[in-house]
Amino acid sequence: MKLQLALDVLTSEEAVDLVYRTREYIDIIEIGTPLIKHEGISIVRCMKKLFPDKSLLVDLKSMDVGAYEADFCFDAGADLVTVLGAADDRTIEGTLESAHRHGGAAVVDLINVRNKLPRLRAMKAMGADYVGIHSGIDQQAAGASPLADLKRLSKVGTVPLAVAGGIGPDTLNAIVRYRPQIVVVGGAITGAADPGAVAQAMAETLRAAA
Amino acid sequence: MKLQLALDVLTSEEAVDLVYRTREYIDIIEIGTPLIKHEGISIVRCMKKLFPDKSLLVDLKSMDVGAYEADFCFDAGADLVTVLGAADDRTIEGTLESAHRHGGAAVVDLINVRNKLPRLRAMKAMGADYVGIHSGIDQQAAGASPLADLKRLSKVGTVPLAVAGGIGPDTLNAIVRYRPQIVVVGGAITGAADPGAVAQAMAETLRAAA
Repeated sequence: MKLQLALDVLTSEEAVDLVYRTREYIDIIEIGTPLIKHEGISIVRCMKKLFPDKSLLVDLKSMDVGAYEADFCFDAGADLVTVLGAADDRTIEGTLESAHRHGGAAVVDLINVRNKLPRLRAMKAMGADYVGIHSGIDQQAAGASPLADLKRLSKVGTVPLAVAGGIGPDTLNAIVRYRPQIVVVGGAITGAADPGAVAQAMAETLRAAA
Repeated sequence: MKLQLALDVLTSEEAVDLVYRTREYIDIIEIGTPLIKHEGISIVRCMKKLFPDKSLLVDLKSMDVGAYEADFCFDAGADLVTVLGAADDRTIEGTLESAHRHGGAAVVDLINVRNKLPRLRAMKAMGADYVGIHSGIDQQAAGASPLADLKRLSKVGTVPLAVAGGIGPDTLNAIVRYRPQIVVVGGAITGAADPGAVAQAMAETLRAAA
């Protein structure tokens, strides 16, 4: 199980600082959707240069022109990108094709997809590298959590899962029981007084469960 | 009926050049989704400074944190942003709330929403400024066009519509019959040998039909 740090800030300075503070404990650096929209592709090049040993994911959440958006991220040094499960199949195929042509991988994010089980099966058939089980921040504000979906969908097996949505030290043990390949953590680390300490504690929980 | 130029290029230089060539004929400058992801918020500030008299739309296609993403666009000078109709209602409400707090407006884009009619009605009830009838570029590659949806949904009335998806000089007359408030044109202008001439011809068609 890998720990992905979701950089949910808006500026490159804040993002770089957060990675410096947590880099010993995280496996994947995630350029969050608002961050890529605010800073553009320069933040991808910057992270690749500063932290060449980390995997780098751009949370594109593409809804159209999957290959066009993924191409410029991989060209700038990304290892992974995301595409929306709510997108047209052709968009998702474009993202996957771009990822594989660049030696990278793609996560199909099921955020706000109503019937997740058939969509998960379709994504598996389509050759998705990972499927994201994700309660959005706006949905968390209304009490949503990804745990119930994870519990249900982890039984399907054979598609590596990334799980995201308000995960923190208190909820991590419930999540790791279902052994997702990637655990995504944002605010619990980025909003902590000591981001490094929280990242370290969560990384240790993941290692102990491995 | 207003003419919106969708800047479907990746660099600020190409985008600015296209607006200089077409500015007499277009009403709304659209920072396309790949362009905002590639160039970041600086392209919004740049366009506002160079073309202060034009309306400026950022095609955010937000799927989460609607208010967070919209806020920084309006703060940088945007007049309009988009949010996905496929998003959670709370995300759309966040975008609308941000738009109205800033004296701007928001377009709810129904791209890849399966049951468009009930979603259009829900968006009307939610207070959406515009609803976007939109066939994505990946969908156009498979033969899709927004005309059939426009025909059906324009009957609902009272929600201003923006229509997008492969519209060019040849298809504009069929579109204007349904009198959408905004006609979005990308490749037919941005890919033309003479973008200004195509923009002028399309603007004249819109004026003649008004």
